[in-house]
Amino acid sequence: MILVNGECREHIEISDRGFQYGDGLFETIAVINGQPVFLDRHIDRLNAGCRRLYIPFPGTELLAFEAQKISEHSSNAVLKLILTRGSGGRGYRQPDVIQATRVLSLHPFPDYPGSYKEQGIVARFCDTRLGLNPALAGIKHLNRLEQILARAEWTDPAIQEGIMLDINGHVIEGTMTNLFYVKNHTLYTSVLTFSGVAGIIRGILMATSSEQGIFALEHIFTQDELLSADEVFVCNSIVGIWPVRQIENIRFPVGEITRQLQNCLAHFQNEAASGGL
Amino acid sequence: MILVNGECREHIEISDRGFQYGDGLFETIAVINGQPVFLDRHIDRLNAGCRRLYIPFPGTELLAFEAQKISEHSSNAVLKLILTRGSGGRGYRQPDVIQATRVLSLHPFPDYPGSYKEQGIVARFCDTRLGLNPALAGIKHLNRLEQILARAEWTDPAIQEGIMLDINGHVIEGTMTNLFYVKNHTLYTSVLTFSGVAGIIRGILMATSSEQGIFALEHIFTQDELLSADEVFVCNSIVGIWPVRQIENIRFPVGEITRQLQNCLAHFQNEAASGGL
Repeated sequence: MILVNGECREHIEISDRGFQYGDGLFETIAVINGQPVFLDRHIDRLNAGCRRLYIPFPGTELLAFEAQKISEHSSNAVLKLILTRGSGGRGYRQPDVIQATRVLSLHPFPDYPGSYKEQGIVARFCDTRLGLNPALAGIKHLNRLEQILARAEWTDPAIQEGIMLDINGHVIEGTMTNLFYVKNHTLYTSVLTFSGVAGIIRGILMATSSEQGIFALEHIFTQDELLSADEVFVCNSIVGIWPVRQIENIRFPVGEITRQLQNCLAHFQNEAASGGL
Repeated sequence: MILVNGECREHIEISDRGFQYGDGLFETIAVINGQPVFLDRHIDRLNAGCRRLYIPFPGTELLAFEAQKISEHSSNAVLKLILTRGSGGRGYRQPDVIQATRVLSLHPFPDYPGSYKEQGIVARFCDTRLGLNPALAGIKHLNRLEQILARAEWTDPAIQEGIMLDINGHVIEGTMTNLFYVKNHTLYTSVLTFSGVAGIIRGILMATSSEQGIFALEHIFTQDELLSADEVFVCNSIVGIWPVRQIENIRFPVGEITRQLQNCLAHFQNEAASGGL
């Protein structure tokens, strides 16, 4: 099922600037027991992205209503919300009056093996480097060619994620996840000033870590620092937290802090799935 | 009129990766007297972009046939050719078998005043900086948010183009044009290794300049170097060459080399418009 500006449709106008230029934003939201999980946070991030791109925000109530309506009969699904600048304008110039296009679509929940969450995944380093784009860093916009090129580097099903560095050699994130590591009981994740997407789960983990007695830092780090970590994990709204048990030929244990944060996140998810938002 | 994979349509599937991720390429081609001008060069660049993005190239003959068919009854128009990775795949991962989507659409030729070509245009420096993305630099891909943010910076109709710097402060290009300047009888344009689009007209001018007795160089330069130029111009496939008569409050004459290259380009365009390709 797909809702385009509130109506059931399968198609979009070719003139839509989302298609013409990738001129828009998106959110990928887990639906559990008919509830879009962390919906308030996703809508807040979309709103923040709208401010960065000067796209008029359709309003929290409208988006929440449509998201809940499309999700209500699904036990488990992925809800994708795309918001574009709509049609019009002349070339790159936006129209004087912007009528944003919102597209909500429901997709099957991916059938990842339970072992990914329990025993962890295998990751590789991608050759494709993330550019440095401060104007776009942090937000979840529709210009995603770098991630596509990185994900096209491997087809081996034994590898579940690719880790991307920026052009300066700093580790930024996975192709579809944010990356964390633990070293000497401190939790580190990348600074996203020049590249990367500030994920919802990343935000939740950074906010909750101090309550959990875990000291967490945004940090600029290299491959070597990552490979000397005590624990490594990746996260996003669909997979939750996946421990990383191997990067290239280096192995990592599934450590205590990773397990603690998995439990903590599962608790938040259950709350969100039963109570709404 | 719009042709989608050879059929008349106004819409595209929402699942198309062009809409989902900006996963594709485009060309903007001038149509004069029913002929797409420099069509062979546009198709060659699209082919080069396909190799960079691993999108299967639909073939020169098919694209040329469709481009000529859609253009044949137009005296003056703009032909836009979009090629995407089509639908399918899982998230950023491309499908095992890629069925590219090609979209050809015809648009009215913009009604730019003749004075832009004769007396020149006024340009400003944009605040939005181009990121450094070597994986994507040079090709005309569908990830164009930087250009949209830059073009949204001004609405004053007295300013016709915005000049974009990269995050290191090097001058790269206009929001919709490539940029050249002349200093001491030498022609300079930006190096496009980290940012920017290698335009068709830029390529023609670089190739023809030595035949014209003009020494031309790709060069890394700053705002100050540009502002000390003897002549400045911008170019693209639709506007041809526009002299720049003013940047911010600095004025430039419309110089001899700019006029010489305008005449040379007009000659090539007339040849292409009368003889095909």
